[in-house]
Amino acid sequence: MDIKKIIEKKSNNKPLTKEEIEFFVNGYTNGQITDYQASALLMAIKILGMNEAETFALTNAMLHSGDIIDLTDLGMVVDKHSTGGISDTTTLALAPICACCGIKMLKLSGRGLGFTGGTIDKLEAFDGFNVALAINDAKQLVEQNGACVISATANLAPADKKLYALRDTTATVASLPLIASSIMSKKLASGASAIVLDVKYGDGAFMKTKKSAEELAKLMVKIGAKAGKKMDYVIGDMNEPLGYNIGNRLEAYEAIELLSGKQGKLRNETLKLASKCIALGKGITEQHALTLAIEAVDSGKALSKFKSMIKAQGGSLSLFKGLGMKPTFVVKAQQNGVLKKINCSELGSLVGKLGATRQKLTDIIDYKVGVKTFHKLGEEIHVGDVLFEIFAKNKEQAKEFAPLFEACYKIV
Amino acid sequence: MDIKKIIEKKSNNKPLTKEEIEFFVNGYTNGQITDYQASALLMAIKILGMNEAETFALTNAMLHSGDIIDLTDLGMVVDKHSTGGISDTTTLALAPICACCGIKMLKLSGRGLGFTGGTIDKLEAFDGFNVALAINDAKQLVEQNGACVISATANLAPADKKLYALRDTTATVASLPLIASSIMSKKLASGASAIVLDVKYGDGAFMKTKKSAEELAKLMVKIGAKAGKKMDYVIGDMNEPLGYNIGNRLEAYEAIELLSGKQGKLRNETLKLASKCIALGKGITEQHALTLAIEAVDSGKALSKFKSMIKAQGGSLSLFKGLGMKPTFVVKAQQNGVLKKINCSELGSLVGKLGATRQKLTDIIDYKVGVKTFHKLGEEIHVGDVLFEIFAKNKEQAKEFAPLFEACYKIV
Repeated sequence: MDIKKIIEKKSNNKPLTKEEIEFFVNGYTNGQITDYQASALLMAIKILGMNEAETFALTNAMLHSGDIIDLTDLGMVVDKHSTGGISDTTTLALAPICACCGIKMLKLSGRGLGFTGGTIDKLEAFDGFNVALAINDAKQLVEQNGACVISATANLAPADKKLYALRDTTATVASLPLIASSIMSKKLASGASAIVLDVKYGDGAFMKTKKSAEELAKLMVKIGAKAGKKMDYVIGDMNEPLGYNIGNRLEAYEAIELLSGKQGKLRNETLKLASKCIALGKGITEQHALTLAIEAVDSGKALSKFKSMIKAQGGSLSLFKGLGMKPTFVVKAQQNGVLKKINCSELGSLVGKLGATRQKLTDIIDYKVGVKTFHKLGEEIHVGDVLFEIFAKNKEQAKEFAPLFEACYKIV
Repeated sequence: MDIKKIIEKKSNNKPLTKEEIEFFVNGYTNGQITDYQASALLMAIKILGMNEAETFALTNAMLHSGDIIDLTDLGMVVDKHSTGGISDTTTLALAPICACCGIKMLKLSGRGLGFTGGTIDKLEAFDGFNVALAINDAKQLVEQNGACVISATANLAPADKKLYALRDTTATVASLPLIASSIMSKKLASGASAIVLDVKYGDGAFMKTKKSAEELAKLMVKIGAKAGKKMDYVIGDMNEPLGYNIGNRLEAYEAIELLSGKQGKLRNETLKLASKCIALGKGITEQHALTLAIEAVDSGKALSKFKSMIKAQGGSLSLFKGLGMKPTFVVKAQQNGVLKKINCSELGSLVGKLGATRQKLTDIIDYKVGVKTFHKLGEEIHVGDVLFEIFAKNKEQAKEFAPLFEACYKIV
């Protein structure tokens, strides 16, 4: 086969065969196909799309480029994947809720980059928490506790890693089949038998409209089903932060608050996801699953389970006693009005720049920085109301960021 | 400016500004923009096209990436450009015809590669002919003889050279705006005031249909007119070789035959091109120009002029006395019928592989190899008629190629 002919074919809007897609993915991963040939093909795919058969083939080729984790000895294992949101700490609460309901969850999670935080970074906000467990050790913890979250190893779908880095510099990220195959190749490599997808849309998400998020979700569900997985999805509004806290320690704390009975959007979203996971895993109705999930939270069992999980991976439990830090600076409202619009991606970005996420891979995270918000869209605001509690490295940084945070709110 | 945003913009089918295109061309030429970013943008352009303003801007940016030859001191200089054909030796005959009619022609020509021969290689079939003249020496010869053909210098539109090499390996050659801007950037850099384009279509040409050749011609005429050049074009059928001979020495000899009075398609095409060049250069009607061109050939003046041109650049005149070589092998018809179809690109390719063109840049050309044909499409063929005289390196090569040449004809 000849990569030039494959590029030519795709650029003439003819679908590629499974063999041609495998030739491309393998050739690019082993260095026989150049970056500039790969980026030309990716651009043709971005503009002209891929049919389902092509998308399945691409996912499969990337899936088989590295290790595939075998979790069959654990029986039914459920995974949840979010496309990334602001103040989205659902995984931390979801895993213990599901575990309480007899659902096994062995999650391989990622770190934050840019404007969205990562589950792994939030878990590391518990001092001493070990995310680098070997799969067999993680499996043992799942047998003991029902849930374990570890860092994704380097060799899951390496083809996707290489292709994603190229897409990032060649403006070929925004493509439904490329996004779907990228996510699903990693998910399928992670070994769960059932996967619930949380696809976000809105200002603070990659997909800007509900419609495009639905499309992406449905495509990923098809890919998963084709691979023999039980699949379901929710669509999440990301035009405002999901919870109130943004920043690793602040979000870890909000998960504890949720499991301690705090009401709100974050709880509702987490219960919805949990009920989908439980329904898939146990083969029961979502309604039934939801009552089990609520019972797990309201009885305090999920909070205990969360403590056991943190302890089992070596994390300090001090955060369960209280947040244990005070805001560096408080931003108050200077006008009356209604919170009409939130620049949600900028909010995430600012927290990232405070030090909560790596701007580049070599950066060191500050787990304590972040921001606490107090309002959801549509709420009335009065002069003097606290808008943001900023947790910064120091007063200077907090004061520098204060007007930037303020500018994220449109109060009219 | 940010190349990623420029790629993103184009891939979303939004036209680029002049400044964005200049940023891309300059950045790519000086190495600040990577190959993989450039190929992504080229693929977006191939699939989504470019409007005229973008195409003008791209041509201009490439034109200004290197030397621009100033021929204004010569007054009106006419150039002719062919998109490349099989047995297309028109330039060798055209230049002396035009010179006889008072038209100055300082042509910078290229070498052959792959299945089409190059004017420079055909001229070098005259032993000792010097194609590497400095522009000022070439100008002097134009003043003396009216015409001079030299090899294109390395620094004409270097951006085009770099981009073309990338397009060649990323299947992004087949794009009207990219082809048009590539050709015109070099033509405009060559300094002529009037340009006649010979755009080929058919099996032996890059453009496969007459319609697409027309489109390309019209686009190039617009680009040239926008740059203040007098422009005209002809569309040339390349479903069969233009003349009868293919190969450098054989084609050089056919130009001599043409100027000695040989009739046929090659003569007609050359006279048509000559009349366009003369009409543009002198500001007279094509009809009038055609009578001048015919007179130049029929009087023998053009043949004498050709001799002077060859002599002035140091070439041997022995070819004017006869071809001076015999075929290595003769292929005869094995069936009666009509010549229905010619695989013209394959014919060119085979002659190239005999040694007439470089397959890679380091190859050494054999000027003497080639093939002489005897029939045009639609002609009747009888068993025993000579189909091909093969001029090969030796009998073995000739016999190896004989069935391949035979397979290029469909006789039914």
